[in-house]
Amino acid sequence: MFDDRILLSHGAGGKKSSELTEKVFLKYFNDPALRDLNDMAVFDLPDGRISMSTDTYVVDPIFFPGGDIGSLAVHGTVNDVAMAGAVPVVISVAFILEEGLPLKDLERIAGSMAGAAAEADVRIVTADTKVVTRGAADKIFINTTGIGIIPEGIQISGATAIERDRILISGTIGDHGIAIASSREGFEFKTTVKSDSAPLNSMIGELVNNLGQDIHVLRDPTRGGLATVLNEIAFQSSIGVEVNETSIPVREAVKGACELLGYDPLYLANEGKLVAVVAESAYEKALEIMKGNKYGQDACLIGEITGENKRKVILKTAMGGKRLVGKLSGEMLPRIC
Amino acid sequence: MFDDRILLSHGAGGKKSSELTEKVFLKYFNDPALRDLNDMAVFDLPDGRISMSTDTYVVDPIFFPGGDIGSLAVHGTVNDVAMAGAVPVVISVAFILEEGLPLKDLERIAGSMAGAAAEADVRIVTADTKVVTRGAADKIFINTTGIGIIPEGIQISGATAIERDRILISGTIGDHGIAIASSREGFEFKTTVKSDSAPLNSMIGELVNNLGQDIHVLRDPTRGGLATVLNEIAFQSSIGVEVNETSIPVREAVKGACELLGYDPLYLANEGKLVAVVAESAYEKALEIMKGNKYGQDACLIGEITGENKRKVILKTAMGGKRLVGKLSGEMLPRIC
Repeated sequence: MFDDRILLSHGAGGKKSSELTEKVFLKYFNDPALRDLNDMAVFDLPDGRISMSTDTYVVDPIFFPGGDIGSLAVHGTVNDVAMAGAVPVVISVAFILEEGLPLKDLERIAGSMAGAAAEADVRIVTADTKVVTRGAADKIFINTTGIGIIPEGIQISGATAIERDRILISGTIGDHGIAIASSREGFEFKTTVKSDSAPLNSMIGELVNNLGQDIHVLRDPTRGGLATVLNEIAFQSSIGVEVNETSIPVREAVKGACELLGYDPLYLANEGKLVAVVAESAYEKALEIMKGNKYGQDACLIGEITGENKRKVILKTAMGGKRLVGKLSGEMLPRIC
Repeated sequence: MFDDRILLSHGAGGKKSSELTEKVFLKYFNDPALRDLNDMAVFDLPDGRISMSTDTYVVDPIFFPGGDIGSLAVHGTVNDVAMAGAVPVVISVAFILEEGLPLKDLERIAGSMAGAAAEADVRIVTADTKVVTRGAADKIFINTTGIGIIPEGIQISGATAIERDRILISGTIGDHGIAIASSREGFEFKTTVKSDSAPLNSMIGELVNNLGQDIHVLRDPTRGGLATVLNEIAFQSSIGVEVNETSIPVREAVKGACELLGYDPLYLANEGKLVAVVAESAYEKALEIMKGNKYGQDACLIGEITGENKRKVILKTAMGGKRLVGKLSGEMLPRIC
């Protein structure tokens, strides 16, 4: 009979490790490179510059409204790879499992990763599993590392915003942060808000293929939220950022939760949104492309790049005033991703 | 004043995260792709098939005789990438830090990773840091994921061993396992054995460049040890493996510790050794090349591939008998790597 919980021997590299690989991972992950059962994957990549990104996911709880640690781990890395304008091609997956983790939880997570990878059209080519004694880790942590290919002539980076560029966001902010907070033990409020966790590479592909070099910056406002990402762009590109508070889309339920918890939506994490800094001449087309994508229906213009207030982010408030918006200082909510 | 311990805010993506990146990581990791401070690294790779490998390191203790979790994380992934006959080019690094980790420990580990990467001639191009609350992880876990390029015409895999091939090992077995066991709390013996943790890519480069397609299999006997790796090769290639007990090099101190602890050196982890399965006509030259490398001075012939006993590993014992050697069953020592 197969065990119903993770044992230390599942991570020892011997018989039990093989059993776990065959009965769980190969059931969900079908790539030929993975099935070879070597310690590395061997494959070909198309020509082009490489975009590579790594992230470890430690989100708590591991299942939350709108996703789980598995889908999040695929979306997050696919998105980071794609933010260079790249087409994500492969990802690796590495698990740290706590002894005693129910096997059905691992199966559910593996299934969710397989589904997310299929939707994003990336191959899971190689994997690793470590098991630690009970109490040495919290349930499950997942690292994903992805590789993508950047189309010829595309140069997208936090450092390439220029004056008069327009700043777009692909939808409402703060959904992921509030979904996690509301499902965390100890928080005593309930909300209907779901995580926005989603793969953004198809939207990015459409933007890059249609607008090419007019797309100057792409970045996903994850940890630290929109405010932190805008500050990073202002700093890296040595320009000013001016955004209109009233233009930034925030769900009513997120606003309500923020008032209750004392959070500012500008600093809440998102896992299925992107900020695009686009040439003035191309922003209307960019907005149209974003709105045409499943994950960009609420996209909108939120501000522009200025030559003044270099390395600063200025928010034009609903009241008509202006205030300086800094990076996140301190910690709002640990283990958000 | 800069903090002397890791705080939750060091992982929040805001000001403290930037501070940690600038004051610790960029001090040791100098790659231009990393210094760009985007969420992904952008770089070019030479032409050729890709070898990619991922591993998470959870070794306990984090500092041990002969290395630490940082050097181990670089060596382990460089070695796995290289075992396809590839030249490792880049690695990513992702940390999970427990709140309260002394910053000097992190600095020591980062310095050790930088040194190991420099020796192995791989670039650390992208990184990630997560911080979890005290008790949700044990001190520090590190994922490294590496990419290498396989020279034209080289096909090395666990599935390509053929009858009459010779089996070589690059040195003594069991050193890493005993070094970790002896430094683990609760083990009451002391030994002079150091971990063999080392980068093997230069040795592999010399083998591949000189002997090309005569190198059939390369594999590093890490978790599960030599016995498990030989079983994997027997299974993947559908051949028999026959090794001579008296030919397998084991240090006296390792033998002694094994007797004391009830371990079998055949199952102990190694982190700086490789098993090479080489065409009969090429094995003497392969042995000469291995012995000429800094990390292969004790290399020797330990057995051969047979057409009999398919998918099995037979050990010819010192007494002249033969016994079947299986994969590791159960768990010898958790968190060995």
